[in-house]
This record gives sequence, C-alpha cells and structure tokens, in this order.
Amino acid sequence: MTNDQTKEPILDIAHLAHLELLTPRFEESRKFFIDVLGMTQSGEKGDSVYLRAYDDYERYSLKLTAAKTSGLGHVAYRTRSPQALERRAAALKGSGFDIGWTDGDLGHGKTFVCKDPDEHRVELYYETEWYDPPADQRPALKNQAQKFPGRGCNVRRLDHWNGLAVDIKANREFYENYLCFRLTEQIVLNDGTEAAMWMTATNKSYDFAFSRDMTGTKGRLHHITYAMNSREEILIAADIFLENGVYIETGPHKHAIQQTFFLYVYEPGGNRIEVANAGARLILAPDWKPIRWSEEERKKGQAWGLKTIESFHTHGTPPVEHK
Amino acid sequence: MTNDQTKEPILDIAHLAHLELLTPRFEESRKFFIDVLGMTQSGEKGDSVYLRAYDDYERYSLKLTAAKTSGLGHVAYRTRSPQALERRAAALKGSGFDIGWTDGDLGHGKTFVCKDPDEHRVELYYETEWYDPPADQRPALKNQAQKFPGRGCNVRRLDHWNGLAVDIKANREFYENYLCFRLTEQIVLNDGTEAAMWMTATNKSYDFAFSRDMTGTKGRLHHITYAMNSREEILIAADIFLENGVYIETGPHKHAIQQTFFLYVYEPGGNRIEVANAGARLILAPDWKPIRWSEEERKKGQAWGLKTIESFHTHGTPPVEHK
Amino acid sequence: MTNDQTKEPILDIAHLAHLELLTPRFEESRKFFIDVLGMTQSGEKGDSVYLRAYDDYERYSLKLTAAKTSGLGHVAYRTRSPQALERRAAALKGSGFDIGWTDGDLGHGKTFVCKDPDEHRVELYYETEWYDPPADQRPALKNQAQKFPGRGCNVRRLDHWNGLAVDIKANREFYENYLCFRLTEQIVLNDGTEAAMWMTATNKSYDFAFSRDMTGTKGRLHHITYAMNSREEILIAADIFLENGVYIETGPHKHAIQQTFFLYVYEPGGNRIEVANAGARLILAPDWKPIRWSEEERKKGQAWGLKTIESFHTHGTPPVEHK
Amino acid sequence: MTNDQTKEPILDIAHLAHLELLTPRFEESRKFFIDVLGMTQSGEKGDSVYLRAYDDYERYSLKLTAAKTSGLGHVAYRTRSPQALERRAAALKGSGFDIGWTDGDLGHGKTFVCKDPDEHRVELYYETEWYDPPADQRPALKNQAQKFPGRGCNVRRLDHWNGLAVDIKANREFYENYLCFRLTEQIVLNDGTEAAMWMTATNKSYDFAFSRDMTGTKGRLHHITYAMNSREEILIAADIFLENGVYIETGPHKHAIQQTFFLYVYEPGGNRIEVANAGARLILAPDWKPIRWSEEERKKGQAWGLKTIESFHTHGTPPVEHK
Repeated sequence: MTNDQTKEPILDIAHLAHLELLTPRFEESRKFFIDVLGMTQSGEKGDSVYLRAYDDYERYSLKLTAAKTSGLGHVAYRTRSPQALERRAAALKGSGFDIGWTDGDLGHGKTFVCKDPDEHRVELYYETEWYDPPADQRPALKNQAQKFPGRGCNVRRLDHWNGLAVDIKANREFYENYLCFRLTEQIVLNDGTEAAMWMTATNKSYDFAFSRDMTGTKGRLHHITYAMNSREEILIAADIFLENGVYIETGPHKHAIQQTFFLYVYEPGGNRIEVANAGARLILAPDWKPIRWSEEERKKGQAWGLKTIESFHTHGTPPVEHK
Repeated sequence: MTNDQTKEPILDIAHLAHLELLTPRFEESRKFFIDVLGMTQSGEKGDSVYLRAYDDYERYSLKLTAAKTSGLGHVAYRTRSPQALERRAAALKGSGFDIGWTDGDLGHGKTFVCKDPDEHRVELYYETEWYDPPADQRPALKNQAQKFPGRGCNVRRLDHWNGLAVDIKANREFYENYLCFRLTEQIVLNDGTEAAMWMTATNKSYDFAFSRDMTGTKGRLHHITYAMNSREEILIAADIFLENGVYIETGPHKHAIQQTFFLYVYEPGGNRIEVANAGARLILAPDWKPIRWSEEERKKGQAWGLKTIESFHTHGTPPVEHK
Repeated sequence: MTNDQTKEPILDIAHLAHLELLTPRFEESRKFFIDVLGMTQSGEKGDSVYLRAYDDYERYSLKLTAAKTSGLGHVAYRTRSPQALERRAAALKGSGFDIGWTDGDLGHGKTFVCKDPDEHRVELYYETEWYDPPADQRPALKNQAQKFPGRGCNVRRLDHWNGLAVDIKANREFYENYLCFRLTEQIVLNDGTEAAMWMTATNKSYDFAFSRDMTGTKGRLHHITYAMNSREEILIAADIFLENGVYIETGPHKHAIQQTFFLYVYEPGGNRIEVANAGARLILAPDWKPIRWSEEERKKGQAWGLKTIESFHTHGTPPVEHK
Repeated sequence: MTNDQTKEPILDIAHLAHLELLTPRFEESRKFFIDVLGMTQSGEKGDSVYLRAYDDYERYSLKLTAAKTSGLGHVAYRTRSPQALERRAAALKGSGFDIGWTDGDLGHGKTFVCKDPDEHRVELYYETEWYDPPADQRPALKNQAQKFPGRGCNVRRLDHWNGLAVDIKANREFYENYLCFRLTEQIVLNDGTEAAMWMTATNKSYDFAFSRDMTGTKGRLHHITYAMNSREEILIAADIFLENGVYIETGPHKHAIQQTFFLYVYEPGGNRIEVANAGARLILAPDWKPIRWSEEERKKGQAWGLKTIESFHTHGTPPVEHK
C-alpha cells in the first residue's frame, strides 16, 4: 500500500477535481466568484450552486454551499480509471478513515468517501460529466472548455487547495499511504516536527498543501487556489480586487516554497482565496526528492523578502477562538 | 500492449528527457545556445557538448553534436521506474522497431534503443544524474536546479520536440502501442489522412508532435522547444533574437492547436528552435478525448489569424531537395 | 510661424483630446466599444454617444456618431492654455485652412476649427470638463479618473490616431507650421516622396500619423488607437477579440517604426481600431532628430519579421473603390 | 517667475538628464550597474565612470564617482533650448540659490549650477552629446539608442530620482518658481505640513520626488529610478537581484501614490535603487490638479495593502545618525 522506493509508484489519483466551500454570506460569495473572479455558474441544487473556471474540463470545480459558517465542505479527487477507484476504496476499507460509497452528486458518479486524520472529508470518483457549454459560452478554439469570459479576473482552472491540520505528519502519511500522493516540499522544525507539506499526484508541483493549525482545531481550511495564465494577470487581478473592495491579505509576491506567484484575498464568506501562477515550473522527475525547509529558512519570508504576515498563520475557516 | 479504452492506461514513460541535435556549424550553434538562449554547458565528450536550461533537473537536456549536416541525433525519454524501462524493452523486443540495450551516455545509465516507423532514434532510460550546480551556479532557492542566468533568453526547461514523418498514422500507432503516449490533438485531412499529431505522457498537452514530411524523407526534425515562464519573456526573446541577428521564422503568436504561445527561429546550424509558453493550460483529464482539426480549420491559420508561413511546412533538418 | 532650428519650439498643443468616429452600424459599434474594449458611456446627444477609457481625464475621448458610412468626423486637440488657443487661431486665420470658431460641444468650450490639406477636420480648444465619476465608477485610487472596469479589454486612455493623406508632405508641413507638432519618424521613398509620417506634441513618440492614401481620396482614416498598460494585456485582448467574433487584421506584433506593440481589429462599423503599448519608450529629447526609413527598410516588414499584410495598405474608412 | 494660474506655463526644463551617485565601494557598485542592472559604461574620467541604460539618448544618465561615502553628487536637467537655459540662469542669478556657470562635463556643454534649499546640487545645460554606439552596440532598429543588452535587468532609461529634504515646502517652491516644474501629487499632514511631493516637467507623472528627512540632515538621497518596459520585467529583475545577493528592500508592488509598479534594492555602495514601470499612465492635462494625500491615506500603505516598511522612511544616503 505504500509508495516507497523499492516499489513502483501508484498513480491512481488523476487530479484534484473540485472543492465544496461553505459560506454564511451565500449571495455575496456567489457574486464574488462570478463577477470578480470571472467564474460561471453551471448548476444549482438545494443550498448549493456549482461554479467553474473557463478551462475546467469537468462541469464544475467549486460547489458553493450556504451554511452557518465558512470552511470546507469536502474535497474531491478524480481517479485515473474505474479500476483505480476500486483499488483506492479497497485500500481504505477498514482503515478507520473510510466512510463508504455514495451515488455521487450533480456532475459525477459513484463516489468513495473517506476522511483524512484531520477530518477533512475526501471524495473519490471516476465517472464525470464533461462541461458542455451553451451556445453563448462556446469557445472560439475547440481545445478550450468554455469561452474566455473577459470579466473580472478570468481564472483559468482550479489549481490546488491548502488545509490546516493539527498533526501534519499523520496527514502526510495518510495521503502517501492511502491516496499515493507524492511529497514535493515540506517544512520541518528544529525539533523535527513537520509544520507544513505540499503533495502532488500530477506534474504540478502540488495539488494540495497542509499547514499546522495552531488552534488545535481539526478539519479547517487555509485557502483554495485558481490558476491564472500569467503573473501579469495576477497583477491585474490585484487592481480588480482593490476596485471591488475585496480584502487583499498579502501579495502579489513569489513564494520561496514552490516558487508560486501568489495573491491572497478573502471572499465575502471569509474563506481565503488565492490566484496563482507557476510560470513554466513543473515536477517532471518521477523520483523527485522532497525539498525540506528549516525553521530558519522559513523565517526569511517569501522569495523576494516579503515578511509573511501574521494572519497568514492564524486565519482559517471556519473561524475559531485562538488558544 | 495497447492503450485502449477498456484497459487501464500504461504510464511507463515519465517525460521527454533530452534531445541530440546535429549541427554543421558547431561553435556557432554552441554560442547560440549559451549566449542567446541562456543555456549552460554541463559536459563535453567527443564531438559533443551537453547543455541545459536553468531548471532542467537532469544534468542536461540537449546534446549538441558536430556533424556534416543538421537534424536530430536521437531523442531520449526517461521511464517512470526501472521496472517501467524493462516493460517497455520487453514490449519492443522483436517488434522490428527495437535496436537493443546500450550502457548509456554521459549523465544516464543503461538504455534501451529503438526507432520509430519514420526512423527517428528513440532512447529510453531510468537511471539519471541529477544536476549538481558548481558554486557559481547555485540557486538562491533550493527548489530550483540552477541559478537564474540573467543572460539572453533565460529558457527554463526543455518542453517538447516536433518531428517530421512520412506516415503520421504509423508513427502515432507506434507511440501509442509501444511507448503508451496519449494522443491529445491531431489534424485529419478530408480524405482521412492524418497530417499531424500531438502526444503526451505528462500533464503538458504534448511532449512531442509530428507533422507530415512532404518530401517523403524519413527521420527528419521540425523543431525542438524550450519553455519560458511567460509570454512577456517570449516577446523579450524576440528582441534578443533580433539584436543578435538570429533568423526569426514566425511568431510570436498563439497556436490555435494546443494554444501554445510560440516563437520560431533557426539556430546557426539550421535547426528550427522554438521558445514557448502554455499559460496555465494543462491536460488533467486521464481520459482526454483527442481534438481533431480538419483541413478547413487548419487553413484558418493561427489563433489570432496569422497565416502559417510556407517555410513552416517545408523547412526541416537535415535539408533535402523538395520533390 | 515655423518650428525651425534657430527658433524655440512652440508648444501650444497639449495633447490629442478626442476623435469623432462615424459608423453605419451604430448600436453594434457602441456595444463593441463598451463590452469588448471596456469603455464607458459618459454622454449622449443627437446621433452621438460619448465614450471614454477608464483613465482619460476629460469627460470623453471618443464621440461615436451614427452615419451613412464609416470614417473620421473630426479630431480634437486640447491646447496648453487659453492663450495658446488664441495664438493657433491667429496663425490659422486667413491661411485657407481655417474654418472658424464654434461654441464647442458637450464637454468642451469654445473651439477653433480648421482642416488639414487632406481635409481632415481639426478642432482646437482649451476649456474642458474633467470627468466626474458617478458613485459606481469611483476609483479606489484618487489619482485615477475612473474605476478599472474589469470588462473586456480595459483600455486605459486614447493614445493616437492615424489618417490617410494623398500628399503626406503637404500635411506634414501644415502640422509643423500651424500646429507646431514635431516630426519623430517618417518613410521616404527612393524618389524622395514622403510615404508616411509620425508627429508628436508630447513625450509620446507620436500623437498621430499619416500614411499615403493610394486611392487618391482625401480625408480618410486609417485607424484610432487606445493604450493598454502592458503587452500581456494586448495578448489577452487578442483572445477577447477572438471570442467575440471581432475581425483581427494583424498582430499582436511589434512595429519596427516607433516600436509600438500593436493589435489591429475592425469595429462593426468598419473602422480599424488598434490597441497598443509603448513599453517605457518616450521621446524626451527636445531636439529629437526624425528617423527616416527607406523603401527597402519598410519592405523588411515589422520588427520581428511579420510581413505587413495587404489590407493594411488598402483598408481605410470610409471605404472607396481602389483605382 | 512663478508658474501660477493666470500666466502661461513655463516649459524651460526638457527632462531629467543624469545623476551623479557617490559610492564608497566603487568597483562593486560599477559591477552592479553593468552586470546586474544591465547598463553600459560609456566614459571614464578621474574618479568617475559614466553609465547608460540602453535607450538613454544622451551619452550617459549616471555618473558613478568613488567617494568616502554614498549619496548624490549632483542632478542634471537638460533645458528645452539654449534660450531656455539662459532664462533659467537669469531667473536664478542673485536668488541665493545660484552657484554659477561651468564649462560642463564629459558629454555636455556649458552648465548653470545652483542648489535647492535643501542643498542638493542641480545642474542645467542644453548642449549634449548624443550616444553614438560602437559597432557591437548598434541596435537592430535605428529608433533605439543602443542594442538591447540581454544581460541582467536590461533597464531602458533613467526615469526619476527622489531626494530627502528637511523642508518640503521650501523645496517645492524653489522647483516651481525657479525651474518651473509642476506639482502632480503631494502628502500633506493633518497639521498642514507638507511631507512629500512629486513634480514633473514632462508627461511622466514625475521626474523627481522629495520626502521629508526625519534626521534633519540636508542634501540627502532617497533613491534613483530606472524605467523598465513592463511589470513582468520587474518581476524577472526581482529574481535576478535574489540570485545575485542584492538586498531587496521592498516590492515588487504598486504605489498608491503615482501608481508606479516598483522594486527597491540597495546597490553595493548603499544607495537605494528602484526599477519601475508606469504602465500606460501619463499626465497629459496641461492644468493637472495636484492630488493631495492625507496622513490617514498614507497609513493605508501601498496600493494593494503592502505596509510601507520602516527602512523606507529612514534609510537615505549618505547614512546619518538618526536623532
């Protein structure tokens, strides 16, 4: 079941598929994603709307759900094949992390549900509905999922998400052992404690990350991220956020870790949203050796010297009292 | 051995590793790659120098070899594991495309050699030497292979190559069946003839492409491509080519097919070199349905209307008399 | 009255202020400027609407007028002072180019009207109405005229216009002698005929240009141009034009002459519209020596080798039969 | 002598021409400007070298002089005409700010020298030597002063400088009254004290700025600035600074005041250097109304929320003990 050196890598997860985000200010959040980020609504059901970036190939990448508070509803990964889905379900069965099968949701078929040690709900599925654009959303180029919106930030596709976790090591081992993600970078403190980690199932340098939750609360969200085509688009996004009264937390700047060019804002429901660009950086090595950052290196701040601001270490959703 | 729908995908090839380029003007070509493209020499042996872009993780991505004429010496792919290398060798053995094992070359270990139906020499290996930068090439960020050069075009990493082939369909079937690449886009003429194809083993939308060789000659090269971080860097590269008297064939512009932002030049030895940027576009779907472009669609030219210039259809290396 | 070497420069014209564009497809043209270019309507009168880019400081930079055919209604320049306006009027009086005073139009005060030798109508004024944004258009930064739109191409400000003229030399002398513009670049054919010219009253390298009208028709328009903040924004604009079915004539590419990064489209009324970026290039020298391009140099095409397409030499508005 | 509303503007200063920078680490500073910023040495005399950005039209824009400490040697402005030079000299004569005529320096002719109330040495001249590139520096396009270097940051041209002054108002009045610069933006504290100002003689929104020197020391320098063609080039510059061990003080980010996209570093001699891009922003209005920023507005930090770091308020050259 492990992904160790003597064995071949298991590649059962294809990619991060979608996230469910909870918001206590549903209508304002919806407007933010559509008018400011430039996303498109592609479905509606119960207390949720389903939203997509213009080049997400599946029907949606974000399920936005009205709730009492903010945070992550669940995260979904698409497997590489039907067989891969069965293999992951079999591996999880009886592990204590398994929840079980569901019939799926709008846009995707049967789903195996589990939770990570930090109690984030994780869903796995293979059968999916490809986005079929209505006439007014048909792209000029048929290798693109949808027309370029020309509205707000024009985010291209879901890129990654970042959770908070009380025990980073436990979560890392779960994702390595049961879902076979590969660790690409991590922060390890002087006393050996793992403080953050970045993992991938693709050639992107990460599909998700976890940072330590200093409040000791499980299941919280740090941020979700949409990819943009260039750093210049992110600078333009900064102006759009400014003009629309969106709270900019930090950036644009370049992370030392993973080198991502980033910009963080809070959507009206309080969840942290990132827009990012990775340049031409990809992880192509099948045997990439994880980069380990020390406490001292982390203190240097971001790549060009920006100090990491305090709220980046403390703000998560749903909000909790800091101990 | 096939990669068909009912079976699971075989993911034995990790990525395009390096190319060997032949040049009749060795010293001028070498200077072009170092001074103009911004690459670094990381080895030398016999009639060859070994060159690298600043974020190639392996020791080199280009072997430049003095020769009587231009063209492709060979192309090398790294497998995902030692076992994957053995599997591909076993699949090829006795196929008529196999050449056999070698001990490898500078920077990589044992290698299985074959040729595609169009007689391009293809090498497969797993064991590789990671680039170990000398003191003056150490990067500020340890997740990068080498210092950002700040010289010429500053290409980041090898991206893909494009061969010419007399029979595109035969080549496509070879790469699908024996190396298990996935077809992402293709051009099919009105009479059903396949005229071009783009294939991938990664999340990049292509690791190589083939276009029809109208001269009926086998084994020729259309171009090799290095990735840059942004479209703006490619515009700057255009100025650098202009100032250095490098022949610019076409671009910068955006391909309709694959949406790559491109710029094509000829290096002094006559080989066509591309610098390109893909924006945030990736192929994440494990079951991507190949995009098929028709003769009429191809005639529309590039994405924003640039007509494809004649030499793009005729110039290949080594040069041959057109029939 | 002349601007020659022994005398001091006369700096009576402050800048290009606005253009009146005629369109036979009024509503479609209006939508193009608002939805695709990202402009804002700031007035309406008779058969005209008044439009502005987000950082034009005056109320508008474009008067769009319904008409039987396309072309230029008039061009307006703002003078540097009330006295400067009187001086230009005095210089023009009795020259044969003068038409006389008017009370102005929406947004500006008393105006002296003349025509150039090629019969383009030119208006001069000083008194102007600064744009006062309504609440929903107030910018976050008070040194900007209006909120960044986040809609379509987001053009920043009017940059220049390009007329066609039968006799370039006659027009050049008019603008030098009566309006005291400075020539920055020109094309002179082997037989000494002036074929094109670029003139400025500011630190921009040109505020207008004229190219030869091969049809022998007077008073026609080649294009008008809005400035964008970066070349990347122009590449994004190309996608927006593509998605909205706007005819892209040529570009994006870099002009050899003036080095402008350009993209030309036709608005629904048939007028050619350019979006452009000059990088950090400015003409700071008060005694700039005009750059003279020869017939041979012009034949080389644009900066990076793009051949100038035929319609660029022939398409003007209003359309005429080519002789 | 004043530039008030009822009179016409006096436009005798054409532009900022060059700066003399003092450095206690001459050879390291010289290398920084050539290898990292991408400038070219175009002269040498006594303890100084003369340096230029690739599109400065004059022979140089920076005189770098070996000295015991850092700081500004002098600043030079080119007048619009010989007559304009005489007029400014006449206005200054007997003002108490005049120093007198010199024969000029390498690259420029007779010069009138004065000092501003804060004792920065200011030189005015008209006669200048246009840069004549040697064969290996000839540009491909003849409307550019020199070949694009393709080395380090590739700065295009000198943009502006920023002095420190004990009494901002006194300095503002000097520059308005004697040199006829126009004020475009300023910071005025709650008690009415002027804390900073930005002035221009061109269509750039500022050619120089002054911030209050909290140490009470006269004649000090805050920074000098070179213009780059795009924000993306500034992001690339940040990586080049990082790789070359150059101290990055703050940025890249966007100033709220003047909207400049900025990046500040210290050159080896201790002087603060900025690389900047203004997008398409220009001041075209001949009667621009100065933007006044309050103490509260300044406290908001930079445009996208970056807090202004402490050293930005305290670091100047030469260094002094803070009281």
